Amino acid sequence: MRFTSEQRLDDGVLAREFTLGEIPGTLWTPESAAPLPLILTAHNGGLHRREPRLVARARYCAAHGYAVAAIDAPGHGDRPRCAADDRSRAELRRAMGEGRPAAETEEILESFIGPLVDRAAPEWRTVLDALLALPGIAGPVGYSGWTAVGIELAATEPRIAAAGFFAGGYVPRAQRERARQVGVPLLFLLQWDDEGNPRGRALDLFDAFASTEKTLHANTGGHTGTPWFEVEDGDRFFARHLT
Amino acid sequence: MRFTSEQRLDDGVLAREFTLGEIPGTLWTPESAAPLPLILTAHNGGLHRREPRLVARARYCAAHGYAVAAIDAPGHGDRPRCAADDRSRAELRRAMGEGRPAAETEEILESFIGPLVDRAAPEWRTVLDALLALPGIAGPVGYSGWTAVGIELAATEPRIAAAGFFAGGYVPRAQRERARQVGVPLLFLLQWDDEGNPRGRALDLFDAFASTEKTLHANTGGHTGTPWFEVEDGDRFFARHLT
Repeated sequence: MRFTSEQRLDDGVLAREFTLGEIPGTLWTPESAAPLPLILTAHNGGLHRREPRLVARARYCAAHGYAVAAIDAPGHGDRPRCAADDRSRAELRRAMGEGRPAAETEEILESFIGPLVDRAAPEWRTVLDALLALPGIAGPVGYSGWTAVGIELAATEPRIAAAGFFAGGYVPRAQRERARQVGVPLLFLLQWDDEGNPRGRALDLFDAFASTEKTLHANTGGHTGTPWFEVEDGDRFFARHLT
Repeated sequence: MRFTSEQRLDDGVLAREFTLGEIPGTLWTPESAAPLPLILTAHNGGLHRREPRLVARARYCAAHGYAVAAIDAPGHGDRPRCAADDRSRAELRRAMGEGRPAAETEEILESFIGPLVDRAAPEWRTVLDALLALPGIAGPVGYSGWTAVGIELAATEPRIAAAGFFAGGYVPRAQRERARQVGVPLLFLLQWDDEGNPRGRALDLFDAFASTEKTLHANTGGHTGTPWFEVEDGDRFFARHLT
């Protein structure tokens, strides 16, 4: 893990850009004498890890006593765009917008998001190894954000102690199956009127998790309309399980 | 409103028993120089207002800066039992336990809970008038608990500024209709595996509310298994809307 720049923010949080092989990322840490628990924040949908609403959430968590890391998934953010991915993403959005038959949307989803999750999850494992090797970061480890990758990690990576998932309407078949192997405490957050995440699918997914401690939060509004108080609720969820 | 006894609790909260006509109730208030916002806490299911888990929640809210009131609904707690109500309640539980046809359960529900809501809601209005006439209680007013009575009040009583509803699987037809007239900020809490409240019906009800600020919380477990942190979440919900 190579740090390429650092900046002390006005809330006292240190923001450091890093690369690990071809993976670019950001690590936010508060000033702390004690070793820090760690939260991995993952996103998809073609977003950049510097997307302001993602950064605001990461900084909030860091200011409340966690090391927080974000990376750009393959084809996202600072990484080379993949023309095929961009086409598939546009096709998926069009299919959803046009209300095409579920089987057709499903096919695009499987052929595009499936392989993306298969590439992204091992990268997070590599990043997790590197982060826990840094001085001052001790765990336990929480996961927050992209549902499909989070399922993959929470089901197979014993170092993940608690997970917050968002949306979850379009999760590939492999991860929908694997949801039954997720047993860590879970906070599942969705937007009730999410234009790109069918509500019924998201609720079925919540039902599938094996976790005995799982909580669903849903708010009115579309995909990007999550109210700020959910960031605070997420922080309290992690405080219950990571500190 | 006639106070019949009072007790200063170890958290500094004053618990006062009262009667208002034939209605028995309890009012919890913290020590405060400033006028207090008010939370009405209602329950059904044959429970006593002194049920320990109800009292614990009421005291928690009072200790956090609210006047909190509970009354016994007709046939509940300190009030004369009604043999017909008891029979209907037993019949409803039996019908649900035996998984009898929905239409049959619906019929018992309408003939028993419907009239009970029609009697309970006006009593809460009378109690609200009396509470707001007391020195030191100024509002705004929140409502917490029994969904059917809460819908009736929130839809028709402009003094209710925010409402927290619980369960909501068996709400009479009249209140399910009226849900579309509820526009106040809402926190709807349910238990994902509630043995007496069908999940689909509760989710349909959440969907029906007109409120633009509505939040759903659901946790694993049966009807009485709500985790304590939901009491804290409820307190933060009221802090956003009543203070």
